[in-house]
Order: sequence, then structure tokens, then C-alpha cells
Amino acid sequence: MPAVRVLYGTRDKYEIHPAAVREIESIFGIRWSDILWDGNVQVPDLPEDNKLKEDLSGILDRDKISLDPESRLIHSFGLSSIEIAGLKAGRYPEIVDAVVEPEAKDLHGLIAFLKSRKIHSIIYGGGTSVNGSLLYKRKGLTIAISTDRLKEYRVVDNIAIVGSGWKGGELEKKLNESGLTAGHFPESMLASTVGGWVATKAAGQESNYYGSIEDRTIGAVLVRSDGIIRDTISPRESSGLMAKDIALGSEGRYGVITEVALKVQSLPKKRFYRAFILKDFESGIDYMRKLDGIPAVVRLSDAEETGFALNNNEESFGIRYVRSRIRSMGFEKPCLIIMIDNDQDRIVKPPRSISLGRSPAVTWERDRYERPCLGNELWKRGIIPDTLETSAIWDNMAILHSTTLSEFDRIRVERGFRGFIMSHISHVYDQGACIYFTFAIMSGNEIEDLSAVREAILNNFITQGSPVTHHHGPGTLMRKYVEKNRIAMQALLMDPIFSEVE
Amino acid sequence: MPAVRVLYGTRDKYEIHPAAVREIESIFGIRWSDILWDGNVQVPDLPEDNKLKEDLSGILDRDKISLDPESRLIHSFGLSSIEIAGLKAGRYPEIVDAVVEPEAKDLHGLIAFLKSRKIHSIIYGGGTSVNGSLLYKRKGLTIAISTDRLKEYRVVDNIAIVGSGWKGGELEKKLNESGLTAGHFPESMLASTVGGWVATKAAGQESNYYGSIEDRTIGAVLVRSDGIIRDTISPRESSGLMAKDIALGSEGRYGVITEVALKVQSLPKKRFYRAFILKDFESGIDYMRKLDGIPAVVRLSDAEETGFALNNNEESFGIRYVRSRIRSMGFEKPCLIIMIDNDQDRIVKPPRSISLGRSPAVTWERDRYERPCLGNELWKRGIIPDTLETSAIWDNMAILHSTTLSEFDRIRVERGFRGFIMSHISHVYDQGACIYFTFAIMSGNEIEDLSAVREAILNNFITQGSPVTHHHGPGTLMRKYVEKNRIAMQALLMDPIFSEVE
Repeated sequence: MPAVRVLYGTRDKYEIHPAAVREIESIFGIRWSDILWDGNVQVPDLPEDNKLKEDLSGILDRDKISLDPESRLIHSFGLSSIEIAGLKAGRYPEIVDAVVEPEAKDLHGLIAFLKSRKIHSIIYGGGTSVNGSLLYKRKGLTIAISTDRLKEYRVVDNIAIVGSGWKGGELEKKLNESGLTAGHFPESMLASTVGGWVATKAAGQESNYYGSIEDRTIGAVLVRSDGIIRDTISPRESSGLMAKDIALGSEGRYGVITEVALKVQSLPKKRFYRAFILKDFESGIDYMRKLDGIPAVVRLSDAEETGFALNNNEESFGIRYVRSRIRSMGFEKPCLIIMIDNDQDRIVKPPRSISLGRSPAVTWERDRYERPCLGNELWKRGIIPDTLETSAIWDNMAILHSTTLSEFDRIRVERGFRGFIMSHISHVYDQGACIYFTFAIMSGNEIEDLSAVREAILNNFITQGSPVTHHHGPGTLMRKYVEKNRIAMQALLMDPIFSEVE
Repeated sequence: MPAVRVLYGTRDKYEIHPAAVREIESIFGIRWSDILWDGNVQVPDLPEDNKLKEDLSGILDRDKISLDPESRLIHSFGLSSIEIAGLKAGRYPEIVDAVVEPEAKDLHGLIAFLKSRKIHSIIYGGGTSVNGSLLYKRKGLTIAISTDRLKEYRVVDNIAIVGSGWKGGELEKKLNESGLTAGHFPESMLASTVGGWVATKAAGQESNYYGSIEDRTIGAVLVRSDGIIRDTISPRESSGLMAKDIALGSEGRYGVITEVALKVQSLPKKRFYRAFILKDFESGIDYMRKLDGIPAVVRLSDAEETGFALNNNEESFGIRYVRSRIRSMGFEKPCLIIMIDNDQDRIVKPPRSISLGRSPAVTWERDRYERPCLGNELWKRGIIPDTLETSAIWDNMAILHSTTLSEFDRIRVERGFRGFIMSHISHVYDQGACIYFTFAIMSGNEIEDLSAVREAILNNFITQGSPVTHHHGPGTLMRKYVEKNRIAMQALLMDPIFSEVE
């Protein structure tokens, strides 16, 4: 039977520096050389529904229809750690009955067919959801609609009108050829799609400068089973909710986003990089909240993440010098901050900081789209990596950080598994920032322990007055944490083809 | 019987310069000294519904309930020219049966009562709607819910959490006392409310710098008849549609906006003003679309508006010198551009332009909230002023402008009334801008001719690919021009208490 890769990206190996390897070996009691899993799972035996195939063939060209088990499996999971751990353990999700790849012109007929047959449909973009957006409860036939052939492309007046199926990296490359940028750079850039950015209400790594996806989106075309809503291409309007307004954060429930009109702008001419070590996380928070002009990228690692970064970047950090400076400055919980901007004036040396020069920021940028592959190396060694992110106002930031770390440790000790948690702040606003927690566990009860950790962290976010996600969308995994009146309001917009009854 | 003022603001008189007066006299064939109307209408005799009064008294303190005809009339119309012309002609709108002014704590009980009695409710903020938002078709009892007592106020981390009933000017003054600004400055500043800004999806005059209301709004509290949706106070989140997302542009249909969390920031320290005369409108468009940093205010008047401005600002413009310079430069259709910003570097002299110094921009800013009162002077003399605004991408701007002027003239000639139209561009984006048309007519068939002109202009907006409004909301008057699938989608969110069935 064929196998399917269930880890992020196509890169088979991500180099980790020996010092970081030793740190991981020590935390988890493993030997790095012991590879326990290759990241693939077997494709199960799945019968084909010939009637469905026949019916779809009446609507779409044959090459736009797949009923083979491999395609169906690939289009039935995202990259949440819960899903990957499940697949690894042989717990498969519900698998769709077919995958279709319509062009824009096919959608009207396809949706009429789905509507008449009451076939539940999942919209599939880049497949990089980390919150279970592709999971569903089977009620009958279900198909996946891939946006892969939705590739409209035209540019007018600093607006790129693009098909939702464009992958970020491809689109950016195409825009760059005309000297333009879309200004949206999520870590998933190489795999995620424009439609996915809108559907999850994503934020890119340079959102401080370019804004998040809602700030970049002029309009959208949303194909619903009750009609097409096509936004006017104009700089702004106030004629009530637009297609883009409900498409943003819709997670596929309100219809298919087929086109998005994105703001584009000239590529910056210059680029400046700086990194510093600060006394501690609180000093970093204090520095960030007082920033006058916020750099495009400003990223503060907590002491734990800084420790790992120092171990994993020995060459680029001039590590011995840095460690001696940290000692001489008396920094007991040193924290790394990196900054990148197109304007040198926006990069201001923090008070009482150790300058690391350009290199850590340059390295960070060089690896920005590959870093998720670091997690793959953990998966292969029996460790489950995961992340959760939220946002907080400045007043709440330090307490949110410390309580989240405590909650992780409480659960770890209670349930008796090995693990670590570290954090960074990025996506900075005058009001507060996004805070990102990266954690990893190794356990004999992987899914249960992972679920318990996630539950504790998410409940802590809510207790601290923060949302469950800053830029990933709640998906199916975090929906239960969203306030119920809000969910009820959202449900009013659901398209019966694309939504499950709650 | 008492009378009620149906014109904007409280200012009884707005001084117009003699040269501008002569221009208006000549266009309309009137004598400025002949006042035909004082701007007031009689309050009709309206019986009180004692049962309703009794029932409301069980829910609210007596001083929060008004059934007197004057209050009821005041809360039953907005300031669209269609409404004012109707009132002037004795065609009264549907008048509400009661006005209530709940505090936040009263809303739960009030809405339960309205729901149980199926009483239709209109939410009343500043009453400055120019698109008939307060008009409704009577189906039974209807009350107006004034937001006047919703005055929460607290500030944390550059977020002001404020009741929706705050009037713009009052709120800004209060924020200014702490050195802060909300950055939202609509022309209606002194009368419109925060709730109204959100409900109409407004844009302030300095939106180039501060963004429009959607860019300033962190969250909202929306009280619906099926529950309260209270957004988390955090810098950003992606947990699907929030209360603020549906509140923006909701025009009172989806529930009562009781609180809004607005971004606030430090008041600017400096302020720079410049004005120039350009060769023609196209040169101005070309200048604006190529702007690198867009000033907070950049406002380009077309030749018609410039002519009126020159006449109406003789002193401040040093008019003789300007006219001679215009002649010597050979500008046949000279256009005024004013710019205001907190950063001098963003104000760049346009090529081939005549500098007018600071004064026209300073004057514009000084009168920014009083200028609507100029229209009052026309109303009093039998002339109907009106405005319509839209937005367009740069490629479409010149044609949208010229065709709209032609459409106005076509209707004017066809129907045989006197009138003028003039225009300016403001709210500038990299993608295009808002374009604002101010027109006035004098006719024996006021409402019919006004409706015909509006119809022609709005249809032209749509033909040219533009929306029906950039920042006023479609209200009831322009809703029919909004695309029907979009209206159907919007209808899914309607709260039965606050919405009419379409």
C-alpha cells in the first residue's frame, strides 16, 4: 500500500546544531540518532463510490475528479499535532469520498449538484490548518473541493485580483517579478493559500508594517449555495457587510472563496536587521510597548526560547562572546529580540541590551519558512511538538506568559510526561501583541496528554481575558472554547453544503 | 403646536462670502435676502399609547421613557435631503410610538420585553444619517432606542472602551484631556455617535493617517434579542466573526451596539498646512495617485468646487494675486488641493502648482465641523443641497467624475430645474480614493427631481464599477442599489426586533 507524508513541507531533513540536540536529548532522555518514525502513514484501503464518480463526471472533466484513496486521505487532514498524532497512531480521520479540483467556471454547476444531492463539502487550500479545520463528522457523502485550479491573476492600481488557490510563495514570486509585494508572509508561506489566509483570518510575520490579512484584503468573491457574492473592486465602501467581511475567518463554512482582491505595493528598497539580548522578558515587554515606530518584524523570545536559540545558533551568534557579556551584565534570564525593517530609524537599540549585530535576524529571516520543519525532526524521534498562540493587551502580557508556563508544568507534573515550553512575542500593536507558545511532550499517552496540555493552556488564555487564537482560526479543535453567543451568531451565516450543524 | 428643527447642527447662521452669494443668486435666480423657510417643522398631533407607556414603565425608570410628540418626531428622521424635503413639504415619515433611553443595565430587560411583545425597534444615535437609516415601514408598534445614556468610559493600553452613545466631539475632548485622540473626525463630529460610526462603517477626515472606523475598532458589545456578544479586549484575534465584524456597517439591523473598544493614541505634537492650485482635476488625480506618503488630509476640489471656494474665501486666499497667477500659468480649469499632516515631509508641493500658503487649509480645518451648516443656508432659500459619495480605483476616477457631472446635467436639462454640482476627492488610498459630489437643485417638484438626480448618479456609480457609498452606509434609501445576493447574505444576520423583513 502507498504511504502519505503527514508532516509539514517537503524538506526531509532540518539541521539542528549539536548543542540544541544535546538539550533535547537531555530533556526527553532520547538518543537523536534513534529515528522512530519516518513521518509517513499507510493509505488505507478505501472503496470507490462508482455512482458518485459517475455523477461527478457529468459535471467536471475527469482530470478534475479523484477517488483514489491516496488523494482522498491527503485531502482529509490538516497539520494540527492532534491530527498528526492520531494518524501516527493509526487513528484516521473521516476520509472524504472524492476530491474535486474545479476551475472557477465549474463552480456554479458543481455547487448546484452538491446542493441537489445534499453532499457535504470541505474546502481544501494548502492543507496547513493547525486547528483541525478539515475534520468533520460524517453524516453522508462528503467531498473535498480543492482550490488548486483557482488561479486568476490580474493587477490594477495596486490591487492584485487573484484566485484563492494561489500558494503564498508562488504568488509573491509572481508579484515580485513586477516589483510588487502582497505584504503577507506567514510561516506557512510556501504551502498555504490566499484563500486559506482569508478563511483563517491570518497574520503574516510582517503584519506590524503591512497589517494582517483583513488589512490587505480589498474584496472577495464568495460562492455560496444560495448565490455568488462578488465585491466591487474599489478602495473602500460602506454598503454593509461585504463578501470579504464574512469570508475573513469563515474557515470554509460560508461558501467557497474563489477570488481575493489584495492590496499590493512596491517592494522595499532596503532592509535592516538587528538583534539584541535583553535582561529579561519583562524588559523586552517594556521595550516593545513603548516603541514609537514598530519595526516590520520585532520578535522577543522568552528565556527558554532564547536558551534554545543560543544553543541552536552558535556560529551566527558568536556564542562565547555573547555568553560572557550576558554574565558580565548579570542577566539571569536573558532574552533575545530580533528586529527587521525597511527603515533604519525604526530599529532602536533597547536600553541595557547586548548587541548581537545583524546575523541572528538575518538567519531568522533566511529560515523563516523552513522553521516548521524543525518540528518534523521531533516527530521522527517520538516527541510531539505543538504551538498555541493568542494575543494580549500589554497590561496582561507578563501574567499571561507566566501563568501559561505554569499551567504547562502543572499538567506535565500531574500527568508525568517529559516536555518543555517556550514562548515569543511577535505581531506587535500599540495595544498589545501576539504571544506564541511552542511546546513539546513525550508520553506513553500522546493524544490524551497533548489534549490535556492544550486544554489547560487554552483555558488559561480565556481566564486571562485573551482569545483562543491570534491568527490561526479556531478550526474544529478550538471552536468549543469560543463564546457560545458568538458561535450562534456565526452559525447564522453557515452555508448548508459547507457547514455541519453544530 | 411646538416646532422641531430639521436641519443639521444648532448653528443658526453660516456666513457666506458676498462673491459666493452672488454666484448662488445667479445660478438659482434668487435673492439671498429672501428667506422662505426657517428650517423648522410643526410637531403633529400624536396620541399617546397609554398601554405602551404603562408597560415600558415596568421596565425602565420614567425619565427614560418619552411618548410626547416632539421627542417621537425628533427620533423618527435623519438628515437625508429626501427626508428634510419631505418634512418641509409636510410629508412626515412614520413616527415612533415611544422613545426610550436605557442605560446598559436596562437593556436585557428591555429587549426581553420588546421580544415578547414583538415590538419593532429603531436604534437612534446622533440622528445624522444621510441615507434614511431611521425610516421604516410600520407593521405595528415601533419604538426608538436612544443610545444617549450608554456612556461607559475607560482607557487601558491605548484602547478606549466607550459607550456607543458618546458623541464624537465630547469623546474626543475627554480623550484630549489625557493627551489622547481616537483619530476619527467625521464632518458630523459634533453630533454623530461612536455607535453610529460603527453602524454606518464611517470614515473620518483623517482616515489616510488613522484609518477608517474598522481600522480603529478593536471590539464591540452587541446586544441581540438572542443574546449578548461581547468581544474580548485584545489587540487582534482570529476566532471567526466577532461582534465588531457584524456591528461594522450593521445600521442597527443586527442588534444594539452598546460598547465599542477603540484604538487611541497620543495627540500629534505638530501640524502642517498647505494649499495649492493645480492646472486641472486630472493633474490633481495624477499627483494623488503617485503620493508616496499620503498626508492625513489631502483634498482635491474639482474646477467647480474650486471656483466656489475661491469665491467663498476671498480674504484667506489673497484672491487677486491667485487669480492673476492662474491666468499667467494658463490654468483654464484650476483645482484647489489642500493638505494637512503632522509630518512636514508628507506634504510635497505638486509639480506646476501655485502655492496658496497655509491659510486655505487652516480655514478648512477651522470650519470642518460647521461646513454642513452651509447647506442650511440653501434650505432656507428654497434650494435643496445634497451629497453622494463613492470610491473608485485610480484608473476609473476621471471617468467616474466626468460621467457623474454629465448625468447630473442630463437630468437637470431633461427635467428643467436649476442646479449645480461640484466634487472633491478625499480619503486617499494607494488603490484609489473617495470622491464626493455636492449638488443643489431648485425645483417645483423637489422630491421627484431630487430622487431622479440621485437615481442617475447612483446608477452611474454602479455602471462605473463603484459602490453606492464610501462612508455613509446605504441606509434605507440606497439599499435597493446594493447587489441582491449581498443583501440576502446580510439578511441572515438580522435580528427580528431590529430589522424589517425585506
